[in-house]
Amino acid sequence: MALKLYGAALSPCTSRVMTCLHEKEADFELVPVDLFAGEHKQLPFLAKNPFGQIPALEDGDLSLFESRAIAAYVAEKFKETGNDLIRHQSLKEAAEVKVWMEVESQQYHPAISPIIFQFFAAPLQGNAPDQAIIDENTEKLGKVLDVYEDKLGRTKYLAGDFYSLADLFHLSFTYYFMKTPCAHLINERPHVKAWWEDISSRPAFQKVASAMNFGEKGN
Amino acid sequence: MALKLYGAALSPCTSRVMTCLHEKEADFELVPVDLFAGEHKQLPFLAKNPFGQIPALEDGDLSLFESRAIAAYVAEKFKETGNDLIRHQSLKEAAEVKVWMEVESQQYHPAISPIIFQFFAAPLQGNAPDQAIIDENTEKLGKVLDVYEDKLGRTKYLAGDFYSLADLFHLSFTYYFMKTPCAHLINERPHVKAWWEDISSRPAFQKVASAMNFGEKGN
Repeated sequence: MALKLYGAALSPCTSRVMTCLHEKEADFELVPVDLFAGEHKQLPFLAKNPFGQIPALEDGDLSLFESRAIAAYVAEKFKETGNDLIRHQSLKEAAEVKVWMEVESQQYHPAISPIIFQFFAAPLQGNAPDQAIIDENTEKLGKVLDVYEDKLGRTKYLAGDFYSLADLFHLSFTYYFMKTPCAHLINERPHVKAWWEDISSRPAFQKVASAMNFGEKGN
Repeated sequence: MALKLYGAALSPCTSRVMTCLHEKEADFELVPVDLFAGEHKQLPFLAKNPFGQIPALEDGDLSLFESRAIAAYVAEKFKETGNDLIRHQSLKEAAEVKVWMEVESQQYHPAISPIIFQFFAAPLQGNAPDQAIIDENTEKLGKVLDVYEDKLGRTKYLAGDFYSLADLFHLSFTYYFMKTPCAHLINERPHVKAWWEDISSRPAFQKVASAMNFGEKGN
């Protein structure tokens, strides 16, 4: 039975999981959740995720939410197929992957997501982007990217010389970020830029990126 | 060779890792980092964590940072000793642990940590607690705890009827939170209150809690 992913192709958290599913060559069905109708804030979706956020995954009688947890489950369940994203055969490499997954979650995401919100979500709500929030977070993000620039000068990917879930976790939010006027933060750091061009050109991500077009109608 | 944990007994992120080490009955040495002298923002500590935050762990030639990643590494490395915190023998239970670890990281922590900052860190910096920040985040935390109350009415712990890393991740921040005037948010929800009393009374946490006293001199 194929996995069922409840979400929206435009949502960066949904596309994070889809990218992982493609890397693992796992069969799945995307079941659209209509965000504009508020379907994620009502039953039956709230039974899948009580926090009312997409995506959620169903695998038989197992129901999961939180995109990073779902992706980690998929990477573990299908560890023998596709690309190894968690380095399960090396405790040390797996530990490095865990560290840089947490860096994305605790350092990168808190800085990049408010910028994306201001440029994409605020206008949908009828508000102009708040420049003070953008400035505060570009400063934070710049400091995080300075660390990345140093690390990516020493290893090809974040956790080492291997692509992993830690890199993958960055893809969908950075994809939207690169469409903002702040993209120079990536482009002016040569190792970060090369890393971004590498990971964003992977076929698994290209499959989902083609549907992440905010300018067109979508769900 | 014993593990070396660089941190401070007062730091909730350090004590998160120490609690995990105690649960796993792992030998370790706490190497104090002097936060008041800014030791974490200078070399040699910056070589252990380029983001300049405690704790960091050294295990032979492996050097790790980010408290949740370190704890997950410890739980994996010592999966056969002490209490099983990651349910490694069941893919489904392990997935539930991952989900609720992420809930702590993405839902609970962003709401509880600004409240703790206002009550404990702002006064150290000579500022009064900012009531607007406290109000905004107690409202957010209340909604998160409503979900917890429902879940903990159905299972004894967050990920199921077993104690796991997901519960453990909450301990040290909630310990400080319970010393604030906002503690009623926990106490007025009976299932959350019973869960808190249960997990905070575990011997592994009691060993670290005794050193988490902000009123006394510490590092």
